Amino acid sequence: MKNYIQAAAWSIIEEGFDPALHQISESIFSLGNGHMGQRANFEETYSGESLSGNYVAGVYYPDKTRVGWWKNGYPEYFAKVLNSCNWMGLQFDFGGTLLDLHTAEVKSFRRELQMQKGYLQRNFVATIPSGSTVEVQSKRFFSMANDEIAALHYQLKATDFTGTLKLKAVVDGDVSNQDSNYDEKFWDEVGKSRTEKGTFLTLRTKKTGFEVITGVKTIVLLNGKPLELKSSEERNKYISEELAVELQAGDVLDIYKIVTNLSSQNYAAAELSARAEEVLHAATAAGFEKLLAEQAEAWALKWAEGDIQIEGDTSAQQAIRFNIFQLNQTYTGKDARLNIGPKGFTGEKYGGSTYWDTEAYCIPFYLSTANQEVAKNLLVYRYKHLEKAIENAQKLGFDKGAALYPMVTMNGEECHNEWEITFEEIHRNGAIAFAIYNYVRYTGDQDYLKQYGLEVLIGIARFWKQRVNWSEDKQQYVMLGVTGPNEYENNINNNWYTNTMAVWCLNYAMEATEIVRAEDPARLAELIEATGLNEAEEFAAWTKISAGMYLPEDKNLGIFLQQDGYLDKEQILVKDLPASQRPINQKWSWDRILRSGFIKQADVLQGMYFLEDQYDLDALRRNFDFYEARTVHESSLSPCVHSILAAKLNDGARAYEFYLRTARLDLDDYNNDTEDGLHITSMAGTWMSIVEGFAGMRVRNGQLLFRPFLPQEWQSFAFKIGFRGTQFSITIRAGEITIFNAGDQISNISIFDEVYQIPTGETVINYQAAAL
Amino acid sequence: MKNYIQAAAWSIIEEGFDPALHQISESIFSLGNGHMGQRANFEETYSGESLSGNYVAGVYYPDKTRVGWWKNGYPEYFAKVLNSCNWMGLQFDFGGTLLDLHTAEVKSFRRELQMQKGYLQRNFVATIPSGSTVEVQSKRFFSMANDEIAALHYQLKATDFTGTLKLKAVVDGDVSNQDSNYDEKFWDEVGKSRTEKGTFLTLRTKKTGFEVITGVKTIVLLNGKPLELKSSEERNKYISEELAVELQAGDVLDIYKIVTNLSSQNYAAAELSARAEEVLHAATAAGFEKLLAEQAEAWALKWAEGDIQIEGDTSAQQAIRFNIFQLNQTYTGKDARLNIGPKGFTGEKYGGSTYWDTEAYCIPFYLSTANQEVAKNLLVYRYKHLEKAIENAQKLGFDKGAALYPMVTMNGEECHNEWEITFEEIHRNGAIAFAIYNYVRYTGDQDYLKQYGLEVLIGIARFWKQRVNWSEDKQQYVMLGVTGPNEYENNINNNWYTNTMAVWCLNYAMEATEIVRAEDPARLAELIEATGLNEAEEFAAWTKISAGMYLPEDKNLGIFLQQDGYLDKEQILVKDLPASQRPINQKWSWDRILRSGFIKQADVLQGMYFLEDQYDLDALRRNFDFYEARTVHESSLSPCVHSILAAKLNDGARAYEFYLRTARLDLDDYNNDTEDGLHITSMAGTWMSIVEGFAGMRVRNGQLLFRPFLPQEWQSFAFKIGFRGTQFSITIRAGEITIFNAGDQISNISIFDEVYQIPTGETVINYQAAAL
Repeated sequence: MKNYIQAAAWSIIEEGFDPALHQISESIFSLGNGHMGQRANFEETYSGESLSGNYVAGVYYPDKTRVGWWKNGYPEYFAKVLNSCNWMGLQFDFGGTLLDLHTAEVKSFRRELQMQKGYLQRNFVATIPSGSTVEVQSKRFFSMANDEIAALHYQLKATDFTGTLKLKAVVDGDVSNQDSNYDEKFWDEVGKSRTEKGTFLTLRTKKTGFEVITGVKTIVLLNGKPLELKSSEERNKYISEELAVELQAGDVLDIYKIVTNLSSQNYAAAELSARAEEVLHAATAAGFEKLLAEQAEAWALKWAEGDIQIEGDTSAQQAIRFNIFQLNQTYTGKDARLNIGPKGFTGEKYGGSTYWDTEAYCIPFYLSTANQEVAKNLLVYRYKHLEKAIENAQKLGFDKGAALYPMVTMNGEECHNEWEITFEEIHRNGAIAFAIYNYVRYTGDQDYLKQYGLEVLIGIARFWKQRVNWSEDKQQYVMLGVTGPNEYENNINNNWYTNTMAVWCLNYAMEATEIVRAEDPARLAELIEATGLNEAEEFAAWTKISAGMYLPEDKNLGIFLQQDGYLDKEQILVKDLPASQRPINQKWSWDRILRSGFIKQADVLQGMYFLEDQYDLDALRRNFDFYEARTVHESSLSPCVHSILAAKLNDGARAYEFYLRTARLDLDDYNNDTEDGLHITSMAGTWMSIVEGFAGMRVRNGQLLFRPFLPQEWQSFAFKIGFRGTQFSITIRAGEITIFNAGDQISNISIFDEVYQIPTGETVINYQAAAL
Repeated sequence: MKNYIQAAAWSIIEEGFDPALHQISESIFSLGNGHMGQRANFEETYSGESLSGNYVAGVYYPDKTRVGWWKNGYPEYFAKVLNSCNWMGLQFDFGGTLLDLHTAEVKSFRRELQMQKGYLQRNFVATIPSGSTVEVQSKRFFSMANDEIAALHYQLKATDFTGTLKLKAVVDGDVSNQDSNYDEKFWDEVGKSRTEKGTFLTLRTKKTGFEVITGVKTIVLLNGKPLELKSSEERNKYISEELAVELQAGDVLDIYKIVTNLSSQNYAAAELSARAEEVLHAATAAGFEKLLAEQAEAWALKWAEGDIQIEGDTSAQQAIRFNIFQLNQTYTGKDARLNIGPKGFTGEKYGGSTYWDTEAYCIPFYLSTANQEVAKNLLVYRYKHLEKAIENAQKLGFDKGAALYPMVTMNGEECHNEWEITFEEIHRNGAIAFAIYNYVRYTGDQDYLKQYGLEVLIGIARFWKQRVNWSEDKQQYVMLGVTGPNEYENNINNNWYTNTMAVWCLNYAMEATEIVRAEDPARLAELIEATGLNEAEEFAAWTKISAGMYLPEDKNLGIFLQQDGYLDKEQILVKDLPASQRPINQKWSWDRILRSGFIKQADVLQGMYFLEDQYDLDALRRNFDFYEARTVHESSLSPCVHSILAAKLNDGARAYEFYLRTARLDLDDYNNDTEDGLHITSMAGTWMSIVEGFAGMRVRNGQLLFRPFLPQEWQSFAFKIGFRGTQFSITIRAGEITIFNAGDQISNISIFDEVYQIPTGETVINYQAAAL
C-alpha cells in the first residue's frame, strides 16, 4: 500500500519525483479514449525503469500458447493485447548531454491528471549532468471528441544553457510485449513516409495482419517562431525528425505533436495512408488549443452524465472520479467489437480483453451513466462471438449448438489456459445471460431479445443442459467439476452459485422465447430455424433439469452451501487469521489455500445479489454472516457485492468499510501490482457500491427504486442516473434524498416502499432515509 | 500400435529399414548398464529424423521452471535428465559422398538386440548416391561387467568402391536437451586432449558443476592391418580424429571404439583425467572381443537370477525378456544415489528420475531377482532425501518434521509442476512407507527399520497427521484436496486409497517404533532425539486419526468409494465406450475426462492389492467387478494390478488379458509414444503379473506362498526367485508346479494352503494347480 497521491476533487496529483514509484504512476496517470491509449511514460528520454505502453483497441496477436503441461482442450493460440507504436518520443541533446530524469537532478516535479478536462500535465525543473537547468511543462490528451486524435504540447525553457540543442522527434514502432511467450516481436513494417502533413509509419501485425498507421505532425517554435525539422534517422519500424538550434539562456521551445492512429479495422488498408493525412491535417489545422477545448467539452458531457459528487471527503471524491474517469477512458461503447479490458490501456498484463467482469460488474455502470447503446454494444459483442462460443464448447466435447463463452477473450476465442479456470469456471455463461436480463430489465428494450439475446440464451441453455448429469445416487441433477467465482476452490462439485445460475438461465431462455413469441412469432420461427431448436424436446429437458437440480444447503445452519463438502473444511474465520498470513495468495501455498475454507470473492453471495428477489432478508442475513466471516476479498471484484448486501441488511457501517477496500485500490496501490496497470473492471464495482449500495438503487417493474443511506463520514453524495430516456439527479444528505427529474416526462420512482410521481424539473424529498 | 518387431526368444529383431519407425527403434534398441546408456542412434551420419540420446546416471541440470501460471509452492528449478556427450559418431566420406542411410538406397537392413549376451548388432547393405555399395556390420554394448566401459566394433566393406575414403571419428559434447525450458545448452567444456591412450573430452554441467569425462580409443584396421588416425577438427565441446585411405573394391575396414565415461560423482574432478586414461587403457588392452565375452558372462548371471521362460508363446517369451533386460539395463542397484527413471537411458522425457513407480511397482522385481542390496539401495535413496522431503513439505506450509516426498525427483527436490499432481498426488508418501514394509516383510531385515526406515516413517506419519483435518460435519477425520492414483480425477476429497494408506502409515510408524524399541532401545532413543518425536502426544494423535478416519464406502453396493461423490457421476461402463472414443486421454478434453467416471489406473484396487490381508475375497470381488468395469487402463501401470487381482479371484482368462496389455507395450508401440523412450517402470509390472498374478506368489510369515495357474495359451512358464539367501526355480505346467530349491538350506514354502518343506536340490510337485 502506498500513499503518495495528493487528494484533490478533480485531479490526481503527484508532487516530487521518486523513481521507485514511477511505474505505478505510469499506470495511474494513463490516458485513453476508448480507441487508443497510453501509459504515462515520459516524452523525453528516460533511462530508468519504465514500462512503455501504447495500445490500439481491438488490435491483437495470437501468441502461441506456452504451458508446462498440455491438457486437451487448451487453445493453441492466445489473442494478446499488443504494445504498439510509440509516437511520443522526444530527445533533447544539450551539447552532448541528454535530458533524462534518470541522470538529471530533479529540482521540482509535479504530475497532474486533470480529470474534469481530460488531460495529463507534467511540470519539472531539472539540472542535467552538464550543469544546465531546464524547466519543462508538458500537456497531452487523447481526444474524446475525435477518438482518432491525440495531442501533446511540450514546452521547454533552457534557463541557463547557451549552445546547440539537438532535438529529435521520434515515432518508434519497434516495440515488443513484455509478456510475449516466445520473445517475438509482433509487428512488421509496411511503410513510412514524411510529407509536409507529417511523418507516417504503417505497421502490420504478424499472423493477424492488422494494419495501423501512426501519423504525427511535429511543430517546433523557438520563442514563438517556427523552426524547421528535417528528416533524421530511419530504420526498420522507426522514423524520426530532427533539428539543431542555437539556444540562449532563457529561450523557450514549444513542441507540439498532433497525432492520429488509424487501423485497418475501421478503414480499408489501402486507404489508411490517405485517410491519416486527411485526419492529421484537419487536426493540425485546428491546433492544440482548440483540440484541448473540444476535449474539455467532451469530458464535460461525460461528467454531466456520470459524475458522483461526495461532500465532506476529498479523498473519496477523488477516488470515485478516478474510477469513473478510467472507465470512460477505457470503453466508450461506440464500437461493438471492443470491450473493457481488465487493464484497459494501462498495461499489457492478461492476454485478451474480456472477462465476465464486463457482464457482472461493468454493465450496470454503463447502463446508468451512458447512452443505452453503450451497454447494448457490450451485449452485441457477445452475440457476435456466439459462433466461436459454440466452437469453444465443441472443443470440450459439447455439441448441438451448446455455447460456452471463453473465460478471457479478444476475438471470441479462449485466451486462458489453466484447466481449472478455462474449462471449469463456466459460471461466466450465467453472467452473460444475466446481463441480457439486466439490460432488458433496465432499458425495457425487449427488442434486444428478439434481435440478439434469445439466440445467445439458447446456446447457453444448451450448454447447461449438457453440462449437468443425472445422479442416480442423489436422484437429482448435479454439476461436477466446476470452479465458482471463488477461485480458491477448484474442480468442485455442485457449486451453489453455478447450479443456481444454470437453473436461472434455463428458465430465462424459455421465458425469453415466450416474450419473442408474443411480440414477433415470425422472428421466433426464424430463430427456431436458425438454431434448430426443438422446443418440445429441449424445453422439456430444461424444465426437468430446472426442477430437479441439486442445490447444496445446510438446513441446520440455514445456509446454502458453496459446494459439496464445504462443511468438511476447518471452519476458521478471517478474524482469526493473523495479519502476518495475509494476503493468503502471497503467504500460503496453493494447496493450502485450496484446502482452507477461505473464500477469495463473493460466491454464494454473488448469486444472492444477482437473484435477490428469490431470497428473503433472513436467508440473506444468515448467508451473509456465514460467508462474510470466511471471505478474504483477495479479488478486487469482491467487496462491492458485500457492500451492496450489507447496505441491504441495513448495516451501513460495514457497507462503507467494504466500499473503502475498492475505492482507492489503484491510487493507493493496495495490492502492490498497480505498476502492471490499473484494475479497470473493479472500478465499476466501486460505482455500484455507491449507487446500489449506499443509494440502494434497483430497477423494479420498469421503474427505479431507492433505499438510501448516508455514510456517516460524508456530508452528502450525489449522482446522475440515465433511465429510459430520462435523467435523474439524486442527492443524498443526512435524513433526506432529493431527486431531480432532468428529463422531459413525468416519472415514477420508489423511495423505500413509497411510489413518487416526479414531474420534469421537480424534486421530491423523503425523510425516511434518516431512519437508517 | 505397430507390429514390426520380429518374434524371437532371445532377441529383438527389425528387418528392413523404415525411416518412419526409426525413432521408435532408437528407443527399443537402447542400451545401458545402470551407470550410462544410449539410444540406438546410428554410428554413421544420419540426416533423417532421429532423437540423439546419451545419458550418464545421476548427472542432472536444474532447469528454471516454466509454467503458464505460477502457483505458490512450485519449485523454481527442475532437475532434468541430461543429454550428454555422444562418443559414437563416425563419418565416411567416399570421394565426396557421405554414407548416410537417409540418402542411400538401403538394400538390406537388420537390427538385433541380443538380450542373452547384451549387445546391439546392425547389418546393412546400402548404395550411396554416388553409386558405391557398402556392407556394414556394427556391434556395440555397455558393459555390465565394468559399468565405466562401452565398446563398438564397426566393420565396413567397400564392395565396389575404389578411391579415397575419408574417415572421421567424432566425440561430440555439443548436445542439447529437446525439453530444455529456455533452449539453453547445459554443458560447458572443461578441456580436451588426444594422447596415445585415446581422445578425451571433459565437460561440466552449468549450475550443478558435475564433470564428466568421455574417453574414446579408436582403432582402425584395413584388411586386418592397423591404420593411423590423426588429429582432426577441434571446436568447443567437440574433438575428432581422421584418416584418409585408398580403398580397393572388396577392402574391409574394422573400426573399434573403446569408451569410458567417468563422472565427478565417483571421482574427484582433478583425478578424472588420469583415471579415465587408466580405465580406457585397461579396456583397450583387453580388447573388444574379451570385453564382449565378459559382457555375455555378466548377463548370464543376471539371467540366471531373473529370467522367465515361457513355453508355447515366442512373442510372450520375447516380451518378458525384453522387459527384464531393460529393467536390468536401467538399474543395477550398485549406487544408492540412483533410481529407476521412467524412461531409463532411452529418452529424455520427464525431468527427474524417480516416481512412486519405484516403490509401488519396481521394488518387488528387484527383491526377487537381485541381491537384497539392490532393493535396499532403492530405499536408502529415499532415506537420503528425507531432509529435502521435509523442506518440500515446509514449502507447502507443513512443519515439525512432516515429510512430503516429491512426485518426481532426481536429487530429492520436486521436479514437477502441475498443482493437482505436485501438491495433491500425495499418496506417493504411502507407497514409500509401504515399500519399507514390503522390503522388511520380504527380506526379514528388521535392521533396516532401525538404521533408516523408522526415521522416514516418522516424517511421513507427521505429514499425514497435519494433512488431515477434523470435519465437524462428519465427526471424522477427512483428507481434502488430493489426487489419487487415478489421475483422471483431480483435487478430490477423501480418496479412499489415500486415506486408507495414510491410516496404514500411521499405524506402521507406531508398529515400527515398537520393533526398534524391542530390538535396540538405545537406537530408538537416538532417533527420538534426532527427530524430536514426542511419543505420548504424537502417537495419541496418530491413533486418534487412525481410528477416526473417514473412508468412503457405499453400503448398498458393498464397495469402497474411490472418493466423495464418485456415485454422482454418470455410471457409464468401459464396455459401452465406443472404440472411436479411446484412448480418452487423446480423444476427450480434459474436463470431460475429469467429469466422467472413467478411471485411468487402479485406485481402490491398488489399495486392496497392497493391503490385501485386510479384505476378504467377497469384498475384493465386489470392488473388482465395480471398478474394473470403469477402468480404461490408460496408465501403463494399471493392468498389472488388475491382472494380479483377477488371478486372485480365480479368473485366469482375465488375468492373462490384463497381462497382455503391458507385456508388449513398447515393442508394439501400443500408445504411439515409444519414440520418446521406453516405459521402464511399467516393465516391472509385467513381471509382477506373471509372478504375483499367474504364479500367485506372496510372502506370508517369512515364507513364500504360491497359488499358481497356467494361462491356457502357454505350455509352461518358469522363473527364479531369490528369497532370504535361497534361490528357488519355479516351473508351472498344466496341472503342476515344480519348485527346485537351489539354495543350501531347507525351506518351507506354501502352495495353495499346504506347507511344503523343500530340501536343497529337491523339488516338490503339487497338482492342485490343475483345479484352476
